[in-house]
Amino acid sequence: MEQSAGRRSGGRAARQAARAARAIESVPFLTRRLEPYQVLSLEGLEMIEHNADMLLETVGVEIGNYPEAVRIFAEQGCDVEGTRVRFPRGLARSVIATAPSSFVQHARNPAHTVTIGDPHIVFAPAYGSPFVRDLDGGRRYATIADFINFAKLTQMTPALHHGGGTLCEPVDLPVNKRHLDMVFSHIRFHDKPFMGSVTAPERAQDTVDMVKVLFGEDFIANNAVLLSLANANSPMSWDYNMLGSAKVYAENNQACLITPFILAGAMAPVTVAGTATQTLAEAMAGMAFCQMVMPGAPVVFGSFASSISMQSGAPTFGTPEPAMMLFVMAALARRLKVPFRSGGNLTASKIPDYQAAYESAATFLPTVLAGVNFVLHTAGWLEGGLTMGYEKFMLDADQASMVEAMVGGVDTSDNGQAIDALIGNPPGQHFLGNPHTLANFETAFWRSRLADNNSLEQWEEAGSEDSISRANRSWKRLLDQYEKPPLDEAKEAEITEWVDRRKASFPDSDV
Amino acid sequence: MEQSAGRRSGGRAARQAARAARAIESVPFLTRRLEPYQVLSLEGLEMIEHNADMLLETVGVEIGNYPEAVRIFAEQGCDVEGTRVRFPRGLARSVIATAPSSFVQHARNPAHTVTIGDPHIVFAPAYGSPFVRDLDGGRRYATIADFINFAKLTQMTPALHHGGGTLCEPVDLPVNKRHLDMVFSHIRFHDKPFMGSVTAPERAQDTVDMVKVLFGEDFIANNAVLLSLANANSPMSWDYNMLGSAKVYAENNQACLITPFILAGAMAPVTVAGTATQTLAEAMAGMAFCQMVMPGAPVVFGSFASSISMQSGAPTFGTPEPAMMLFVMAALARRLKVPFRSGGNLTASKIPDYQAAYESAATFLPTVLAGVNFVLHTAGWLEGGLTMGYEKFMLDADQASMVEAMVGGVDTSDNGQAIDALIGNPPGQHFLGNPHTLANFETAFWRSRLADNNSLEQWEEAGSEDSISRANRSWKRLLDQYEKPPLDEAKEAEITEWVDRRKASFPDSDV
Repeated sequence: MEQSAGRRSGGRAARQAARAARAIESVPFLTRRLEPYQVLSLEGLEMIEHNADMLLETVGVEIGNYPEAVRIFAEQGCDVEGTRVRFPRGLARSVIATAPSSFVQHARNPAHTVTIGDPHIVFAPAYGSPFVRDLDGGRRYATIADFINFAKLTQMTPALHHGGGTLCEPVDLPVNKRHLDMVFSHIRFHDKPFMGSVTAPERAQDTVDMVKVLFGEDFIANNAVLLSLANANSPMSWDYNMLGSAKVYAENNQACLITPFILAGAMAPVTVAGTATQTLAEAMAGMAFCQMVMPGAPVVFGSFASSISMQSGAPTFGTPEPAMMLFVMAALARRLKVPFRSGGNLTASKIPDYQAAYESAATFLPTVLAGVNFVLHTAGWLEGGLTMGYEKFMLDADQASMVEAMVGGVDTSDNGQAIDALIGNPPGQHFLGNPHTLANFETAFWRSRLADNNSLEQWEEAGSEDSISRANRSWKRLLDQYEKPPLDEAKEAEITEWVDRRKASFPDSDV
Repeated sequence: MEQSAGRRSGGRAARQAARAARAIESVPFLTRRLEPYQVLSLEGLEMIEHNADMLLETVGVEIGNYPEAVRIFAEQGCDVEGTRVRFPRGLARSVIATAPSSFVQHARNPAHTVTIGDPHIVFAPAYGSPFVRDLDGGRRYATIADFINFAKLTQMTPALHHGGGTLCEPVDLPVNKRHLDMVFSHIRFHDKPFMGSVTAPERAQDTVDMVKVLFGEDFIANNAVLLSLANANSPMSWDYNMLGSAKVYAENNQACLITPFILAGAMAPVTVAGTATQTLAEAMAGMAFCQMVMPGAPVVFGSFASSISMQSGAPTFGTPEPAMMLFVMAALARRLKVPFRSGGNLTASKIPDYQAAYESAATFLPTVLAGVNFVLHTAGWLEGGLTMGYEKFMLDADQASMVEAMVGGVDTSDNGQAIDALIGNPPGQHFLGNPHTLANFETAFWRSRLADNNSLEQWEEAGSEDSISRANRSWKRLLDQYEKPPLDEAKEAEITEWVDRRKASFPDSDV
C-alpha cells in the first residue's frame, strides 16, 4: 500500500500569507559541503592526462587567422609549424599553474558578488539562443525586448546568482552593435555579475571599456567584474575571434571561461574517455594562452560535452555518457586547480515536456554532484540551445533552488539527529505536532514554488493546470513585480553617452 | 554560440529499418561498476546506527494484534512489555547477520532470473495504485484488465527486470480474492520474477501455494521465487497483516522486502538524520523478525522516505531531503550487509508533465548513484502513488534503460581511450567518418526510444507531439505486439483449477 493520500492541516490560507510576507532569503552563491562524486580512479584520471598531453604534443592545436597568438605560443616555448601549435609535454600544465584556483567576480551590487571556485557553486541562465518560446506566442526570433525580459527575470530569481551573458540573441539589432545593448542591459536591468562579448576582440574591448565607466578604471585593473565565454572550434582548433577576445579580457585581468563545445561522435570520438581527453587538451591550450598573455588572470575550465544520435546525427542531451564526461572533467579540473564550468538544464526537446524535464534533470543533478563551480545554462535552455524558453526558465530556476538543501549535506547536529523527537514520540503517533517539528517548521524541507502537490480534486478544481501553465503565470507575475535595481544616474548617463558615441562611430553591419 | 543546429546524415530510413530489425538486447539485471555515492562520513553513519540502537532499546516497536510475533521476539531475547518489543543493544544487528548479503530470485523463465544484492540493480514497475491514468481516458479506478495490461507491458520492456507486485489494485475484484488473480496474472502474462500478496497471512500462504504448483515444492523449499513487500506502520509499529505475511514467506524461504514507508514530518522527524535513524530502527526490527522465524531467509532492507509540504501537509517527491535520505540509507544497508531497496520515479504530479519528470529524475538518479539493488516504482508512478500512468510507465521505463550505460562506468580500454582516432583526426575535421567512429557506431551512446531529437521543422511536420502523445502510441503498440510467453499447458490448467477451487472455498468480501 505504498501511496500517500496526504494529510492536510488547516490554516492554509493564513500560512500562505505568512509565507508571502516572509522575505525571500537569498544567498549570493552556494557552498558545497558534500564531496564531489567520482567515477574514475586516480589511475584513470592520470591516463587521460597523459593522453591529453600526448595529443597536445603530437597533434597540437590549429590557430585560425591569428598570427599574433601563434607568436605568443611560440615565444612561450610551443613548437610552431605554420598555424599549428604543439606543446612540449608538461608545458601547458606548468603555464596554467599561475591561474588562481578561485576568484571573486564583482557585481555592481556587492551583495551579489560571487566567488567562483571550490567549494562554491554559481548558477547563471542559459546562453546564446537565437530564438525564444513562450506558451502564448510559440517560438520566434529573439529580440532585445526578450533579452531585457530575461535580465529582469534573472534579477527576480534568487536561485540564479549570476546574470549570464547572451541571454538570447537580439536579432533585431545589427550584429556588430548588439553587444553594446546586451552589456548595457546587463548593467541596467539587474545588479548581478555578468559576461562580456566574445564575438570579436573589439567587442570584448567595448565590454571592458563599458565596465571601466561603471566600476572605475582602478577597480577594474585589480578586480574581475567580467567572466566571458570562449569556445574552442573542436576538434583541436581555436579561432581569432574567441582567442582574441580572451586575450582582451586576460590583459585586463578579467576572467575567461575556456570551453570546448563538443558533441561527441561529431567533434570528438564516440567514447567518454576519448572526449574527455580531447576536452582537456583543448581547454588546456586555451587556458595556457590566457596565462601566457597575463599570468594570474582568472580562467575557468569549461566543458560542454554532449553526444549525437548515431542514427540521425541529431544532438542529444541528458543521456548517460555526457553525465559521465561531466564527472570526469570536474575531477580533471580539480587536479588542474582551476574553477570548473559545465552542465546546466539541457534538452533537445522543443517544448518543456516530460522529455525536456527528464533530460534537464539528468544533466543538472550530475552537474551538482560532480562539483561544478559555475553553471551556465541553468535555466531556459530548449531545443539543443536554439531556443530560450520563458516557461522553461521558470521551471529550471525553481529546481535550481533546491540545490542549496542538497549540497549542504546531512545535518548531524543535535537538532539534526532529533533524538528527543524520536525518543519522545510514541509508536504509531504522527510527528506533526511534535515540538521538534514545530521548532523546525519554517526551515524543514525545500519547497518548490511551481510544483503542484495538491490532491487531484484540488488540482482539478483549480483548472487541471500542467507545469507549463503555472510557469507561464509565474514569469508574467515576476515581470509585473519587477523593479529596476538602483543605479547611479550620472553613471547611467555616462554609459549611455559612451554607447551612443560608440554606435555612431561605425556603420551598422550584419556580420 | 553554444547551440547545436545538428548534423543529419542521410540514409535515415534505412538505418531505422536496420535498427528495428536488430534484436532488442536484454540483460536480466544490471551490474554496477561505479562506486556508490556517499554523503555521510563513517562517523556520521555510526552515529545513526548508535541512535537507531538506542531507539530500539528505549522506545522499541509496537506489535499490533499479533501475540505470536511478540512471543517470538521474547523468545529470541527481546524485552517485552505487553505489545511493546524492545531490543537490547546489538541484538537486532546480530540476529540480522544470518541474512544473506545477496540472493537469487528465480523467474519461471531462467533467462529472467535475477540476483538481488551488490553490485547488482533490478528494476520493477510501480506498485499499489488504486487508480490508472492514460491520455485517452484520464484517471479512473484500476481493474484487473489494467493489471494485465501492465503485466504485458512489463514483459515487453527489457529495462524492467522484474514483474513487480500490485501493478495496480484491481478494484473490480473482491478484496479478499483479488490477490489470486494478481498472482495468477503474474504467472501467466509475463515470465519475469514477481512479488506476492502481503495484505493478510493467508493470502501470503495462497501465493506460496500457487508458486509451489508452478515451480514444484522441492524447488521452492530451497529457492526464492517470491519477493514480497512488508511495510512498517511508521513510526515504530508493525501490524499483524504485514508481519504475519512476512512470517509465511520467511518460513518458506521466500524473500521479504522490509520497508518503512515514511513521509518525513508526518511519520518521522523533519530531519534527514532523524528519519534515517527511525527507518533503520524499523527496518532492523522487521528484518530481525524474519531471521528469528527462519535464519538465513532472504530479506531486503527497504526505505521509502519522502517528505511533506510543511505548508499544506501534502506529500512531496523529488525534493533534495529524500535524496539525501536515500544516499544515507543505502550506505547503512551496505554496512548491515543486506540488499537494499529504495527510490524509483516518484512524483506528486497528477499528469506526466515537467514537474512529474523532474521529480522522477530527481529521485531516480540518486537511486542509481546511491547503489540501490532493487528498485520498486521504476515506472508508472503518478500522484504520490495513487495512480499508475500508462504514458508515465513508458516514459520512465525508457529512462531506466539508460542506467546500464551509466553504471557500467568509464571504458578505459584501448578502444575507450580512442588514441588512434584522436591522433589521426586532423584539427577542425569532424569524426563522423573516422574509422573508430564507424567501428563503434552500433554501441556508442544510449538511445532513448521516446525522446524527439529532431529539428523543430521535422518535429512540427510530424505533428508537434509532446512526450505524452509519443508514449501513448508506444504503449498501444507494445500491447498490440505482445505475445504471451510460453507456459506449460498442464501446469496452467493445474493452477487454474487450484485458483478456482480456492475462490469457491470462501465467500467474496470487500475487506
